[in-house]
Amino acid sequence: MVSRPTFEDVCAAHDRIEAVVHRTPVMTCATLDAMSGRQLFFKCEQFQRVGAFKFRGASNVVLGLSADEAAGGVCTHSSGNHAQALACAARERGIPAWIVMPTSAPSVKRAAVERYGAAIIDCEPTLEAREQTAASVIERTGAYFVHPYDDDRIIAGQGTAAKELIEQVCQLDALVSPIGGGGLMSGTCITTRAMCPQAMLVGAEPSGADDAAQSLAAGTLIPQTAPDTICDGLLTSLSERTFAILRDHLEAIVTVSDDEVRAARSLLLERAKLWVEPSSATVLAAMLNDQCPIPRDARVGLILSGGNTRPDV
Amino acid sequence: MVSRPTFEDVCAAHDRIEAVVHRTPVMTCATLDAMSGRQLFFKCEQFQRVGAFKFRGASNVVLGLSADEAAGGVCTHSSGNHAQALACAARERGIPAWIVMPTSAPSVKRAAVERYGAAIIDCEPTLEAREQTAASVIERTGAYFVHPYDDDRIIAGQGTAAKELIEQVCQLDALVSPIGGGGLMSGTCITTRAMCPQAMLVGAEPSGADDAAQSLAAGTLIPQTAPDTICDGLLTSLSERTFAILRDHLEAIVTVSDDEVRAARSLLLERAKLWVEPSSATVLAAMLNDQCPIPRDARVGLILSGGNTRPDV
Repeated sequence: MVSRPTFEDVCAAHDRIEAVVHRTPVMTCATLDAMSGRQLFFKCEQFQRVGAFKFRGASNVVLGLSADEAAGGVCTHSSGNHAQALACAARERGIPAWIVMPTSAPSVKRAAVERYGAAIIDCEPTLEAREQTAASVIERTGAYFVHPYDDDRIIAGQGTAAKELIEQVCQLDALVSPIGGGGLMSGTCITTRAMCPQAMLVGAEPSGADDAAQSLAAGTLIPQTAPDTICDGLLTSLSERTFAILRDHLEAIVTVSDDEVRAARSLLLERAKLWVEPSSATVLAAMLNDQCPIPRDARVGLILSGGNTRPDV
Repeated sequence: MVSRPTFEDVCAAHDRIEAVVHRTPVMTCATLDAMSGRQLFFKCEQFQRVGAFKFRGASNVVLGLSADEAAGGVCTHSSGNHAQALACAARERGIPAWIVMPTSAPSVKRAAVERYGAAIIDCEPTLEAREQTAASVIERTGAYFVHPYDDDRIIAGQGTAAKELIEQVCQLDALVSPIGGGGLMSGTCITTRAMCPQAMLVGAEPSGADDAAQSLAAGTLIPQTAPDTICDGLLTSLSERTFAILRDHLEAIVTVSDDEVRAARSLLLERAKLWVEPSSATVLAAMLNDQCPIPRDARVGLILSGGNTRPDV
């Protein structure tokens, strides 16, 4: 059986990272409340450092490494927010970061990682090439590999977002997070079951990358093979670890179409002046979807996961 | 001599409106700090109700009206944020609002005002037509006229933004607000001189509508005749009232070009994930301008005035 983090791990993570992460604000919007028929509390992780919650988990791993483990630096393969998060966390600790990135990654993402002082290692745009390249970097440098979500310390770090949200708002009837690899949702589950045990736990997932909904329905892990969605942060598959946590704690997953995500993203901007990346908007889209099982008038905490997208997207 | 509000008026305004306004968050961004060489604290009034600080002043007037004064409703001529603010404040008190708007106003602005339940009265797009139409509405309905800035209670209401900012951050070395008609800057001056007397007071003004800079340089009020700037919230001229307050308190006005405003707006979005209207971005543009007299490493409070603009603008 795979290990899983506890709420004590989340609290230890929070103690460890509190000095380097932002305690992001929680925002409300009367118009969106009226539209969804519920009281919505948006935890604004787009204002987190590097523009996404991923900095929480990455910092927890990097700051928790022993001097020996940290000596060779850290390494990951990613072209998304985890890459920036690990680069920034490594810079905070003063150790090198090696980010394996497909040559197809947009130049703006490469620039963001370079800005945090990380070294980018090019590879072909396949998962195999990414893993092989990372393995050879690790062999050459002694760097410590940091997975974006299949890691107890990453999950515990991501759980600090829900911890702050519950501290900031109190008395929530439900919590909702987006699901990609399941790290944020897993951390949200563990924290909520400890701090707010009666609250309903709901995931939001794009219908074009609904491996979590399919896996939970089938009772077994079904990897994502050909994701097709504008939610570029939610393309990955659950791991055995995150699947097990979601299976044990989630009440429901609401799947939403890209059109629903676009509409929700526009509403967040026009009504609440909140600029988020498409992945973040899934949680509001879920609130506006008929399939959402959260009762009317419930107090709902929603984690807006990040804001790293360009105005023309 | 024209009257002017005191800090006691600002405090009374805050007591009056506290239950209906948002205490907006103050955000920071390490990258923008590094670029400007100062510690910047952004007071995020784009998250205020109706998306702009204008709701503070409008609420202070509307909630302060006697039952007799309020009986006929309120009226203004505006196509901007003041129109939405007055409409929303009137709805909160349950009285009618009549908004005189040029037929040339964009449909999105008309829709916003209608959403708050106000009646729109069309007029030709000239100042004369606006004033005449408003006068006839007032004669017909008995509505109370609420000027967007040339009013002590409006200025006192706008001063509550700086009051919150100073309470939230403490120990500021300088405060910066955009200057249009001067209501926000005047309220910022009065509050700052009372709460943080040693702080430097600096205005940010688009060079295409620099009547305040010209007026202060000349020592006499020079109205704006042909404003030309993307900062659509800053097209108006100072009044004798706001001119007198700015003349007595402002250390400097930094004028910024539309290109500087565009660059600052992009930086706020890309680096801090803050979506603001062009008028708001003047304050960051001023921080990045060589003419800014605020010393390096100073702790600077900047008021982001609003966020009412469309993604395609």
